[in-house]
This record gives sequence, structure tokens and C-alpha cells, in this order.
Amino acid sequence: MTMWGSRFREALDPAAQRYNASIGFDRRLAAQDVRASAAWARALRQAGVLTPAECDTILAGLQQIGEEFAGEGFVYHENDEDVHSAVERRLADLIGPPAGKLHTGRSRNDQVVTDLRLWLMDHVPALDSALADLQGVLVGRAEVELGVLMPGYTHLQRAQPVTLGHWWLSHVWPLDRDRERLQQLRRRTSQLPLGSGALAGTAFPVDRQALAADLGFEAPCPNSLDAVADRDFAAEFLFAAALIGVHLSRLAEGVILFSTREFGFFELADRYATGSSLMPQKKNPDLFEIARGQSGALIGELTGLLTILKGLPSAYDKDLQEDKQPVFRAYDRLAQALPVLAGALRTLSVRPERMAAAIDEDMMASDLADHLVVQGVAFRQAHEVVGRWVRLGLEQGRGLHSFTLDELHALHPAFTAEVYDFLDPTHSLSRRAAIGGSAPAAVAEQLAKARRAIERTPMDSPPSETIKGAGGSS
Amino acid sequence: MTMWGSRFREALDPAAQRYNASIGFDRRLAAQDVRASAAWARALRQAGVLTPAECDTILAGLQQIGEEFAGEGFVYHENDEDVHSAVERRLADLIGPPAGKLHTGRSRNDQVVTDLRLWLMDHVPALDSALADLQGVLVGRAEVELGVLMPGYTHLQRAQPVTLGHWWLSHVWPLDRDRERLQQLRRRTSQLPLGSGALAGTAFPVDRQALAADLGFEAPCPNSLDAVADRDFAAEFLFAAALIGVHLSRLAEGVILFSTREFGFFELADRYATGSSLMPQKKNPDLFEIARGQSGALIGELTGLLTILKGLPSAYDKDLQEDKQPVFRAYDRLAQALPVLAGALRTLSVRPERMAAAIDEDMMASDLADHLVVQGVAFRQAHEVVGRWVRLGLEQGRGLHSFTLDELHALHPAFTAEVYDFLDPTHSLSRRAAIGGSAPAAVAEQLAKARRAIERTPMDSPPSETIKGAGGSS
Amino acid sequence: MTMWGSRFREALDPAAQRYNASIGFDRRLAAQDVRASAAWARALRQAGVLTPAECDTILAGLQQIGEEFAGEGFVYHENDEDVHSAVERRLADLIGPPAGKLHTGRSRNDQVVTDLRLWLMDHVPALDSALADLQGVLVGRAEVELGVLMPGYTHLQRAQPVTLGHWWLSHVWPLDRDRERLQQLRRRTSQLPLGSGALAGTAFPVDRQALAADLGFEAPCPNSLDAVADRDFAAEFLFAAALIGVHLSRLAEGVILFSTREFGFFELADRYATGSSLMPQKKNPDLFEIARGQSGALIGELTGLLTILKGLPSAYDKDLQEDKQPVFRAYDRLAQALPVLAGALRTLSVRPERMAAAIDEDMMASDLADHLVVQGVAFRQAHEVVGRWVRLGLEQGRGLHSFTLDELHALHPAFTAEVYDFLDPTHSLSRRAAIGGSAPAAVAEQLAKARRAIERTPMDSPPSETIKGAGGSS
Amino acid sequence: MTMWGSRFREALDPAAQRYNASIGFDRRLAAQDVRASAAWARALRQAGVLTPAECDTILAGLQQIGEEFAGEGFVYHENDEDVHSAVERRLADLIGPPAGKLHTGRSRNDQVVTDLRLWLMDHVPALDSALADLQGVLVGRAEVELGVLMPGYTHLQRAQPVTLGHWWLSHVWPLDRDRERLQQLRRRTSQLPLGSGALAGTAFPVDRQALAADLGFEAPCPNSLDAVADRDFAAEFLFAAALIGVHLSRLAEGVILFSTREFGFFELADRYATGSSLMPQKKNPDLFEIARGQSGALIGELTGLLTILKGLPSAYDKDLQEDKQPVFRAYDRLAQALPVLAGALRTLSVRPERMAAAIDEDMMASDLADHLVVQGVAFRQAHEVVGRWVRLGLEQGRGLHSFTLDELHALHPAFTAEVYDFLDPTHSLSRRAAIGGSAPAAVAEQLAKARRAIERTPMDSPPSETIKGAGGSS
Repeated sequence: MTMWGSRFREALDPAAQRYNASIGFDRRLAAQDVRASAAWARALRQAGVLTPAECDTILAGLQQIGEEFAGEGFVYHENDEDVHSAVERRLADLIGPPAGKLHTGRSRNDQVVTDLRLWLMDHVPALDSALADLQGVLVGRAEVELGVLMPGYTHLQRAQPVTLGHWWLSHVWPLDRDRERLQQLRRRTSQLPLGSGALAGTAFPVDRQALAADLGFEAPCPNSLDAVADRDFAAEFLFAAALIGVHLSRLAEGVILFSTREFGFFELADRYATGSSLMPQKKNPDLFEIARGQSGALIGELTGLLTILKGLPSAYDKDLQEDKQPVFRAYDRLAQALPVLAGALRTLSVRPERMAAAIDEDMMASDLADHLVVQGVAFRQAHEVVGRWVRLGLEQGRGLHSFTLDELHALHPAFTAEVYDFLDPTHSLSRRAAIGGSAPAAVAEQLAKARRAIERTPMDSPPSETIKGAGGSS
Repeated sequence: MTMWGSRFREALDPAAQRYNASIGFDRRLAAQDVRASAAWARALRQAGVLTPAECDTILAGLQQIGEEFAGEGFVYHENDEDVHSAVERRLADLIGPPAGKLHTGRSRNDQVVTDLRLWLMDHVPALDSALADLQGVLVGRAEVELGVLMPGYTHLQRAQPVTLGHWWLSHVWPLDRDRERLQQLRRRTSQLPLGSGALAGTAFPVDRQALAADLGFEAPCPNSLDAVADRDFAAEFLFAAALIGVHLSRLAEGVILFSTREFGFFELADRYATGSSLMPQKKNPDLFEIARGQSGALIGELTGLLTILKGLPSAYDKDLQEDKQPVFRAYDRLAQALPVLAGALRTLSVRPERMAAAIDEDMMASDLADHLVVQGVAFRQAHEVVGRWVRLGLEQGRGLHSFTLDELHALHPAFTAEVYDFLDPTHSLSRRAAIGGSAPAAVAEQLAKARRAIERTPMDSPPSETIKGAGGSS
Repeated sequence: MTMWGSRFREALDPAAQRYNASIGFDRRLAAQDVRASAAWARALRQAGVLTPAECDTILAGLQQIGEEFAGEGFVYHENDEDVHSAVERRLADLIGPPAGKLHTGRSRNDQVVTDLRLWLMDHVPALDSALADLQGVLVGRAEVELGVLMPGYTHLQRAQPVTLGHWWLSHVWPLDRDRERLQQLRRRTSQLPLGSGALAGTAFPVDRQALAADLGFEAPCPNSLDAVADRDFAAEFLFAAALIGVHLSRLAEGVILFSTREFGFFELADRYATGSSLMPQKKNPDLFEIARGQSGALIGELTGLLTILKGLPSAYDKDLQEDKQPVFRAYDRLAQALPVLAGALRTLSVRPERMAAAIDEDMMASDLADHLVVQGVAFRQAHEVVGRWVRLGLEQGRGLHSFTLDELHALHPAFTAEVYDFLDPTHSLSRRAAIGGSAPAAVAEQLAKARRAIERTPMDSPPSETIKGAGGSS
Repeated sequence: MTMWGSRFREALDPAAQRYNASIGFDRRLAAQDVRASAAWARALRQAGVLTPAECDTILAGLQQIGEEFAGEGFVYHENDEDVHSAVERRLADLIGPPAGKLHTGRSRNDQVVTDLRLWLMDHVPALDSALADLQGVLVGRAEVELGVLMPGYTHLQRAQPVTLGHWWLSHVWPLDRDRERLQQLRRRTSQLPLGSGALAGTAFPVDRQALAADLGFEAPCPNSLDAVADRDFAAEFLFAAALIGVHLSRLAEGVILFSTREFGFFELADRYATGSSLMPQKKNPDLFEIARGQSGALIGELTGLLTILKGLPSAYDKDLQEDKQPVFRAYDRLAQALPVLAGALRTLSVRPERMAAAIDEDMMASDLADHLVVQGVAFRQAHEVVGRWVRLGLEQGRGLHSFTLDELHALHPAFTAEVYDFLDPTHSLSRRAAIGGSAPAAVAEQLAKARRAIERTPMDSPPSETIKGAGGSS
């Protein structure tokens, strides 16, 4: 059964029908379609289009369909073009003629985008919560490894000492921004298209404000043409997902590097590492590589949807059917990745002695320059002097600490014996005590702030949608 | 002069130097670099690193440099690697040795990203205001053309009647969402990196909270490693810009279509249309085509930056130098496009008679089905009946209104004489009176809401940054 | 069974295992994996690693597995990590211990990319042939509608008359370029990675030249590190697919426009059009809109893979696992779209009278200028004169033909009575007789050339891979 | 002067004019525009439209304009809309009325795309040659470092020994594929649009075959509508550029990693490394990071252009004006990067002792399994046995070599004393002697093949377009 055949003298070509059908992927909207249909039935009753009895019959039918979907007992027919037709077809099976009244005053154009918005409103909180879990793991590690010295890098070259706690926390804040974005986009998603009809608004006196409230939306969309055409919320979700992907890729890159034998800072737990079919000794960070790779796929989904939207004339065009798969795929990737990465990070081993050993004394070069600054030398000059000291060391194959004060005076008269203190990495750390710095006290404050950020008021989430800590996808 | 040469035995290869240099594009940050440098000098004084006299000397020098930039009198040197070096070099020219103290405790890593954030904080309000201007034009037209009947389209096929006022407004709301996004991302941009040093925090007791306030930031970035590595704000701006571009492309598509001779709804003013070098009769909507095309370029900028960020290990990597050009280009495209499109839309002529003539009576087919619904027929059946009526009309070459009530009764007994009222487009319109619908009263309410939305509290904007109505770029 | 467990003390976490597993999508490589495994067995026999008897046993087992896959009788186990493990596991079920010898000297790194290359080598010809079919439809229509006058457009404004035959052919040549690209990329795909081991080459004396020949490859990859890391062929395929998508989107845009009531040039056959669930009169070009939309998705796939590849260190990284799904999805989209579009184009109706009516006389304005050129006036001046003529016509509401010769002489003395011939569209057409022009004779020549281009030597294609005219996907 | 004003009653709004103008970037096509204009003048003479004298006058004028461009003495006027108008305007200055005849029978639509194709045909060979130079550096290093042992990596974990020569060569072949692609796309670019007019073909009897030959094109485009609409060649160039960018990013990633203190395999020459404004000791691989980052920008350019093309109706739309800047930017990035990277790679120092020290004995684990294979054990079992050996070693903190034969027999009875030979990395290498393997002999053969590949017949290149070894851009 299609919902539109009578005007046509010939049925759709079978290959064209397959090409046109979205049931292969929009069936994921089943629960949302049932929920929105029930709300629509109530709105039609309120508008006087359905009698209370008709409405109750429809609601009972929809209830059963919802249970069939939940129990995976729903049987699709070959001719179900999309989830909306499938639900209406099944409703007719169950309750007969009154089913034909449900589609009064609505269109698949406002229906499908309502379903997709509902789906996102249901699933974004689950993602948010999986992000919070990952943040929790990072903060937990930061707390334990607050004081573990490690080299900080820029350009992947050793730069200045930091602590592992500081490093873990540096990956918490990007996720915090992600969660803020999710919260804001969820609110923007929460505008109800239903009641916009095909494009010009519903022709029955439906109370859209009440309908919005019934479905948990903040407000009805203000313009019916825009309501059926707008996929900003999906693009915005894909952007947020892509940026989460980028953040995970950067974290993954760090873990992959630190797990190399050359760095040797981290070792993955056996149950979060994989081997080689050929090389028996291999222990590979596959999970982090997949996460890094998937950031590319997520960027591609975003590009794809934006390109689909480009240049579409207003109101509904069928191109918009291509909006759902990228959203589902992006969600699935993250829903699968986040708990796995959380598990892997929670269980990896750290080698503080390797980290400490990687702190070369020339990483304190800027501190040495600061020593001169404290003596009143201008920084630019101090930098130049220490640069020469470093070069001398390289040329003579000597450590910086081996230079005598006399030798240093030859470089600049302002050096004092205190300069040798500045070669100590913990001294270097302690000097960076301003907000956000790597001094232990500053990191401790930061940690407390991070804990508070994780506890940001969680979004309302229907209890059924969760991303399991064990990595199960919803 | 480079800021880092003394450790090296050889100067940078000249071709490598050109490749490495960013002065060709980061000079756009000149005003921001001067401003941030002045704030940094004040922070160093507060931290006791600069004496009040040194600080005053530096501030006076920076003031003069700022004026040189503003007056385009600043002379770049061949060896200026980036705007930061150029400013410091010029400062040394002007005030001598104290200039060498300015870079104390900061790094180009925190400096450059502070400048770029400041630049965006300065320019986003100008964009917001240009968007509001465009909204104003759309709303102004909507007010005048509130009651102008036009065909509404889905799949580019005539669907149901709407009004031109409703159509104009359908392009106001996407821009409203854009402006909300800009406001939110501007706030997220307003986190201060300065004081993060190269990666580990500044080693001097700078009050970063005060520094943030001095520069108009909301708060200091909470983690120094993240602060120098984070370009989320730039990616988010590019996403917002790409989505604005998509919205403009959809509006442009509508205008291009409606300006064809086939549609004939719009005619562009001569001063917003172009001709052909070969065909003397041509009048082309080039400006709208460029806007449509640029949405592709804007999507490309977003893709590019996200890809650059993917997989970067934490803290600063030089890849990040590639962040600025996409931001500048995206801004420039929109800053140029918005006032031009506003002008073109304000001045185009509308042909109400062409629009009215394009309203075919079969566009009321869903109303005819509703007529049966009102008589108690289930919508699904009513739809099927009217579909057959439409097919009969096509087959017999007859208009729907030409069918007699007897003929209609052959299709379904529930038809009454009232059905002929349902063929009237104004009747169709008036039925769509729910919020967001195309009934004149609903559109009038929508219009008032749109006017209020335009007046959203404007962002603080330095008076110097404006996108001129005459299309001037800032 | 994993292929690598013994070095590890703990099994992979179940969620991590699901995240890591590729069996959900790489099972599409089953036939290729069996084929490549059989060839590898033969190579190992030739290298003396397998005895003839062992080889025969393995080949018999693989034969059966191949039949199980073909008959969809293959049973996957829950622990099958990927298609390679599944095949080897099943082989062990079937033939016992000798199965354990098959993986000698190879790695999943060279195996998987060999499979994917084989898959593309199998499927690209099917795509090529579907493109040729579509070209055939276009050329067939061009032949029939060679002389049907229609307006040619630039900027979507009526520009100069052309013929529908010329327009159909304008969509043949982009597909011709696509097919040339497919042919070239298929050849580049035909470099054999197998025998590269995990990264350093196989440690057994395999004759890779013979192995390449056995599998239908042109040559072995010349460097083992590159062989396992290289996904250029996949990126190149995705680029070709994206460009095909863009070409289809442009063709689709034309069909969608020409099928509007405003243009009214085309009418889709009922069996290639769809209706509306709400509006009984609607007849929508959904199939073409989907094709247009999918071009966005195809561009996204390309972006995604390129981004995945960016910055990977050489040799195999697990990110590369993300290479397969975009390739499969891109292929599927095109394999589904091409026959459907071919069917829709073959069956659509053309309305020559609407096209003819759309030829305004001012579309001959450049011919009028040429008339003056023939009289010796410089084109630039002639253009200016005719521009004024057009403006006069607009201002006075008069057609160009209504201007008397005297009036024309007031514009320029060189006008002769012959000018009125230049207002005839067939005269305009006939003047464009150079190669590639719209004169009927030139189009007839072009048509013959297009027919020859379609017959370009087809690529070798295994008979089993075809995209059915009825739109079936392989 | 515009080329189209007379039909209009009002001049273009100044802001709109700036938005519409392309002179800011299409001036790079000046040389090509002059060359194509000269060829067009000759074609018009041949067609009898210009007298020989007129043609000579025009050619002389164009000659002078060409010289003005070459000497940078050409003066643009404020109203020059694009390079075509500028050339025609200047021609009129120089030679008066005959200049007005040059535009006869052509349009900016066929003109601009001819210019852009010519530009690419001129510049692709320069890029090809810069790629060959970089290949030359890589092969040169490979020759010198053919036998330098280094660890090969997969998943960034030490996998099997290879040689540095093999590694350098692994980066030669991707560039070889790039060059093949450039050659093929250059040929596809070499189809002449000129003579297609605005869209319908030129109305004068121009010999397009001769015109193509005159300009160095292979053939005229076969369809005028397609000719002015087609930007496949630009998209294909951007794809090739993006893939080159990806290849450089992967090479850069390797160099950046190997230059870390943790790997310590490479040290950049001082004149190809940069320092820090804050940390005097830093030596950063900025040049390689920029190259890595620019791959993102290149991917963005490709995405952008494909998106611009999506959904454009056939023949010329102004969106296509956006085709040039991505092409220029992509070229410039590569033209600047390639010689710089070549210089940096030529001059970097290698530390063979660090590489040798990084070869852990467990990297021979697959060889140990092969030892059992040679004894007749099935590989799958052998892999499992050696995996347990590796685990025992890890658990007991013992090297693999320290296990006695007795101990090994406890793992598997087939071990013989020969197994200890398999722990030698040079033995491991020597076993990988098949084509493309890492055995020294195989690498030597590969090197010879690479040398031959570099010498692929160079593309014809006008002598003026070269990318200087010193990094100068053309």
C-alpha cells in the first residue's frame, strides 16, 4: 500500500520503488513515529476531528504497535515504503477504518521531521551522558596522577614539564564544550514541526502549543514552510559529532604515541588491545586508531548533509530523505566509541619513571631565561643568551647544568647561583601557578572545577535510551 | 629579526622562510595584537614584572603602532615572520630596550590564539548585525506582501497556496537560528588563552581573571595545554558561516527560480542584475548565483579546518597556523554578500498577477479531501477519492470545478455543494490558521514575532567594526 | 577464534570486540577473500610451502566455502572478527589442520587490501556498463528529438535557442569522462598488494608476478610498506563516484526544472513518479531529487576517506579499516540510481509545443548584433546598439519584430531588411554549425561521435557482477 | 566599462559591482587570456570575420598587452570587472575601433574556461616536475641509506625490521601515482571550449580543430552546452592536489615522528627547522607540520568545488566563477611546499645507531614462527606457540634469546637450534626477497625501477612556468 496511489494510472516501477523507499533505514524512527502519532490523535480529538472513542481506538492500536516494535515482533510488509506507511498500514490491520482518520491534517513532510527531531531529543542525552562518563574517567585518572611529572610537547618536541594530571584534564575541557553544544542544539531541536502539514500549515484547528507540550517540545515551529524544509538541527548535530570525533582523534593520537615503545609512557590493558594475525609479539592500539579514523568519517557525514541542503528551494524536497542515515551513523559511531575508549583509558597502565626520564634539562631553558628576567634582564635578551647557552651545550656535548657560573657570566653577567634551581622541573612547574597553569596547586583547583563541570545539569533523557558502560549501543 | 634565532647555527632557508611566514595573512590581526599586547603589559606591571614607567613606555609605543596600523602607515619589513614579530620589532624601533620585556611570560602560542579570538569577538557582532539587516528587509517585504497569494511548492511542484509574506518569513527564521548560534559561539569564543604561555602556563604571577576582564573576555581558559591547542571556536564559526551560506543558497535558489521567465514572479532591479558580454537581451541574477556558489566554498572551509585539526596531538602544532585564512575568507564572503543580497531583495519587483495565475485549482485537492473529512469520511479514503477525481480530470481534460455534484456523487456520496467553496484558494488559506500556518491572521502573528526576534539583544560590538549597508566590508 | 590471542593474558573486552570487529561490513568481500586465498594457496605450493596435496585440500575447502557464500548458506560465528578469520575458521572446520597453513607468509594487512582491490576490479565494470546504459538512453532520446527546438539557458535565463537533442547530448559527455576515469582508476587499482606481508614483504619465495597474473592484476605493488598503506585507489574511486553523482545531480536538476508546471517541457511517466500522502493531485520527481541529494552523500564519502588518510604514518594503521564502507555505500548508491534514472528518462514525455513557445524573440538578440557585424559594424558596438533596441522594446512594451527599418536606422544606419530573418530561431540555430554547435548538422555529427564513444572497449567484467536494467543492485 | 550595459537603465550598485567582480583573482589568467584572444583573432580571420589587417592590428595590440602583463606594467582600471574586460578595454586604448571586433562570436562563458584550462595545462607540468624533484631526493637518500636497518611499524608499534632505503622508497610510489594522475587529467583538460559561444556554439564559421591546435589543445569540446558548464578538469585537479597533499601529510607525519627526541632517528638541518619565541632550546619541524596541515586545506578546496557544482542546471551559471580561487590556492600551496620539503629532506641527518637500537628482538617473532613452519608446523599453530613464548618473556622479564632450546621444546618439540638465527634482523630482512620486499636485493631492484619511473616522459611545459628548486613559486 502506498499512501498516494489513486491519481496514478501505473504503479511505481519496482526498481524505482526500491530506490524511493526509506523503510530500510527510517524504521529506526518507529518508536518516535508511534509516539508522535499518538500525540497527533490526541490533538485531532481536541480539535474535534476525532471522537473520543475513535481517538481511544487509535491510541490502543498505536500502543500495541509500539509494543510490537519494542518486542521486535513488528512484521514489515514488502510494500511498506517508509515507517509512516508501515505504522498506518498496521494500524488499519488492527483497528480497521478509524485508522484512515489518523493522517487527517498532517503530511509525511511534517511527520518525518518531527520523528527525527524526537529521535535526536531522545538520543542526545545518552550521548551527553557517555561523554560525561568519559570525562569522569579522565578526571579520575587526573586525580590519581595529579603529580606525575611528564614532558609537555609542542610540535611534538619536548617543550616544558607538565604533569600527567594536567594532560588528562586538557582532554576534559573539549568534551565540556561538546556537551554545552549538545545542550544548546538539543534545545534548538526542540521546535515542533508537526502541525505544519505538507508546507502550508494544518487545515484543522489543532492547538500546536499543547501538541508541543504533549511531545516534550519547547514550542511549535513558527513557519510551516520553514518547518518542513529545515534540517539545521541535523546539520548542527553532525557538526557537534564531528567535533567530538576530532577531540577523540586528538586524545587517541596522544594515547597511540604514548603507547609506542619509543615514548613508552602508557601500556594498554590486554583487554583493550589487539594482536596481529602474522606477528605474534604485536600489541596494537586498534581501538584508538579506529576512533581516530572515524573522525574522518564523521567529518564526511557533516560535509555530506550540508552539501545536500545547499541550494534546495524552500519547503520539502525529497533530497531531504538523505538526512537520516548520516545522523544515525554518526550517533552509532560515537555511542560505540565512547564507552570503549572510557574502558581503555580507565585500565591503561602508566609508567611514571619513563615520563620522568623524558624530562631533559633543556626543557627548563625558558625558566633559565626567566631567571635572568628576575635579575632585570629584558626577556628578549635573556632568551637570546640562553639560546646561545643551549647551542654551546649541543656543540660541546655538555649538559646545561655542567656550565660553571664563570662560564655563564661569559654569556651574561646577570647570572647568579640561583640559576641552578631553575634547572629543576618541579621548580619549573611550581612557577606556573596562575589559573590554568601546570603548578600542582593550579591543577588541583582545575580538577575541582572539572568535577563541577561534569555535574552540569543533565539533560532530560527518557530512561530507555542509554549507552551502556559496557559499550552497548542503544 | 626572528624571535628565536640564537640556538641555530644557520638561518632558515629563504624558500622555507617564505613557506613558514604567516605575515601575509595574519597582519589582519594587527589591531588585536596591539590590544592584547597592551593588556599583557598591564598584567606584567600588576605582576611586578614591569615597572609602571616601563609599562607606560610600552603602552605609548603600542598606542603609536596601533595608530600606524589604523592609518595604514605601518611599514612591514621583509623579515617580519608574523604580525607578533612585526609589532615587537616596531616597538623596539620606537622605544628601545623596554620592548624586549613585553614578551616575558607569554608565547606566540597563547598570543596568536588570543588575537584570533579577539578578532572573532570583534567581527561576529558585525555579521550578526548584517544578518539582522537582511532579516529586516525580508520582514519589511513580508509586511507589504502579506496577502499576496502565491503557489507553495514541494518537490518544486505546485502544492498548496500560500502567501508571499509567508514565503519571505520562511527565510527569516533560519537566519534567526544563525544569529542564536553566533551569539552562543561568541560566548564560547570569549575564553582567554593569554597567560597559558607556550603550553604549561605563564611563569609569572599574572592575574588572568583581571586580564580577561581587561580584554573583554568572560573568563580565562581553564587549562593551558588545551588553551593553545583549541580551535573549536574557529571550527564553530566556520560551521555557523557554512550554515548561513546554505541558508543564503536556498533563498538565492528561490529568487533565481522566481526570476526566470517561466516563473516570472520576481524581477530584479537593474542595479542588482547583470548582463551578458554576448547576448544583449540578458538580465542575469549573478549576485544570487555567486551567493549560492559561495555556500560550497564555505562548506569547504569548514571541512578543511576540521580535517586540519583531526589527529593533532595535544598542545600547539604548527598545523594550527592554517586556522586563520579560512576564518577570514568565510567572514569576508558573508560580509560582502549580506548587504548586497539585502539591497537586491529590497529593490526587486513582484508580479502578484503572475503568482495568482499560477494557482491551479488542483492545488486545493487536499482541501477537497478535507471537505469529505468534514462530512465524516476517513481522510485516507477521502484522499483516494479525490485522487481519482484528479485523474478523471486529467484524462478528460476538464477542470475540477467542472464536475457536477452528480458526477462527484459517483465518486463518493458524501460530497455536498459546499465542496465548490473548497476550490477557492483564499478559503484554503484561511483554513490554515494554526500557529505557523499560512492563514493571513497566522502570518500576521508570525510577522510580529519575527520583528521581536530581529530585535534580540544585540551583541556588544566595537563601533569600528561594521558591515556597511552599502556593502562595504569592514 | 581470533587470529592473534596467545600473547595476551586477557580476552578483548566484549564492547571493544564489537567496536573492533569489521565482519558486519567486510563480509561483502567474501567472494574476493576466497578467490585471493585460493591464489595464495597456489603461490605457497609453487614456493614449496604447501605440498600439492595440502594445496588441493585447501582449494577444495575454499571452493566449498565459496559456494556457501554464493548460496548464502555460510554461517557466521559470533566470534568471527572479520571475513578473513571467518574463512580461515570455516576452512579449519572443513579440512582440519592444513587450514592452519594457509596464512603462512601473508598478513591480514596485505590480504584485506587485496580483497578490496579485487572487489573494485569486479564492480567498476558493472558501474561502467550502467553508465553506458544511461548514455544509451540519452543518445536514443537525442536521436529522436534531434530537431526539437528548445530555449537554451544561462543563469537560468533564456539565452539562445538550442535543440533538445543537443541538450540530451550535453549530459552524455560528462558520463564519457566518468567512464574514462573509471577505466584509468581500475588499471591503477590493478596492482597486487598480496605478498607484501604485514609490511616488510613475505618471507617465503612466492612468485608475485605469477600471483598477480593468477588474480587478474597487472603487476605486484613495488613496495611492501606502501602496498599495505595505500588507499589511493579507494579515494580515486570515491572521487569518480562523487563526480558521477555531481553529473547526475545536474541532469536531475534539469529534469526537475523542466517537469515543473512553470517550464512544462517534460512529464514523467506515472511509473517513475510519486505522489503525496496529503495532496492527492501531486506528481513528484522524487527519484531525481534523491539522485541530486545523493551527490551530497557521495561528496561526503570522499571527504571522509581523504580525511581518514591524512597524516597516517606509513604502513598499516587500523584507521584504514574505515575504507570499505564508503566504497560500498558509494557503489550501492550509483548502482541503484543509474538504472532507475535510465528508466525514468527513457519513459518521460516531451512537450515540443511548450518548448517552442518558450523561445522569445529576444533570444535572437545576439544574432541581431551579428547581423550588424555582417554589415561591418564592430561587435562591441553592435552589441550596444541591440541592447538599446531591447531596452526600447521593454520600455514601450513592443516586440523586437515590430520595429520598422526606419526605427532601426535611428539606432544604427547599418541595419538592412535582412535583419528580420535573424529573428527566426531556426536561422539562429543553423548559424551555429561549427563543431559542437547547436546547428542540426553539427548535432547529427556529435550524435554519431557519442554513439562511438559509448562503444568504448568495455572493461573485462566477471559475468556475475551486473547492475540490472531493472534496477537490481549486484 | 562593462561589456553589457546598454540594456539596463541603471548601473550596477557599487557594492554589488565589487561582489560581482572577479578581477581580484582572475587577473592570474592574464597571459592565458591574451594567448587565447590572439588565437581567436586568427580564427576570426580564417573565418573571414576579420581582415588580415584588422587581425594584425589586434595581434600587435595583444602582443603589447601581453608584455605589459609580463613586465607588471599593466594598469588596471577601477571598473575592470574581470580580466577579459580589462584586456578588451586596454586593446581599445591601444588600437581603437578594431578592438571592438575581437569579441565577435565568442562569449566570456567559453573564454574564461578556455583560459582556466590553459592555465592548468601550463602549470600542471611545473607541478609534475616539482614532484619529480622530490622523488629524486627520496630516491637519492634511498640509494645512500639502502642498507640502514630500521624498525618497520604498523599501528605505530614496532613490527618487523626494514631498511631506511625501503622506507624512503615507500614515499616515492605514491608520488608516482600522483604524476600519472596529473598526466591523465592534463590530457582531459586539453579539450577546447573556445568556439562554444555563450552556450549554443559560435555563430561564425570558425575552424575549431585548427583553433585547438593553435592553442595546444588536443581537440575541441564536442558539445557547446557542456563546454561552458564543465568544470570536471578543475575538480579533478583539486582531487589530485588533495591526494598529493595527503601523501605529503603522511611523509611529514613520518618525519615529525622520527625527529622527536623519543624516536631520535632524524635531525633536521638548522636551515630547515624553526625555534620558539619563548623556549630557547626548541627546534621544531614547522615546515612539515604546515605541509601536514595544508592537506586539510586542500581537501577543503576539493569539497568546496564539488559542492559548488552540485545541482547546477546545465550551461553556464555564475556559481562557476568560484572555480578559480581553489585551483590557484591549491597550486600555490603545493608549488611552495614541494621544493621546501625536498630541501629539508635532502639535508636532514640520519642516526643509524638509534634506528638499529630500536630493533627489538621480538620484532623477529614472525620469523620465529616461520622457523617452526619450516619444520613443518602449521603457521597458525606456530604463531600461537611463539605468542606464548613472547608472553613468557614478558612475564619473566627475559629476552627471547635467553630461552634455552629445552625451554623452547616445552613450548613445541619442533624447535631446532637454527631458531636463534631467526632472531637476527639481517636474517629477517634477507628472507623478504620477493618483489617489493625489504631484502636488500629486492630494494635495490626497486630502486632501479623507481629511477626509471621518475624519468617518465615529462609533460610539455612552457619554459616560463617552473617551480624553482629554491622554493620560488611560479
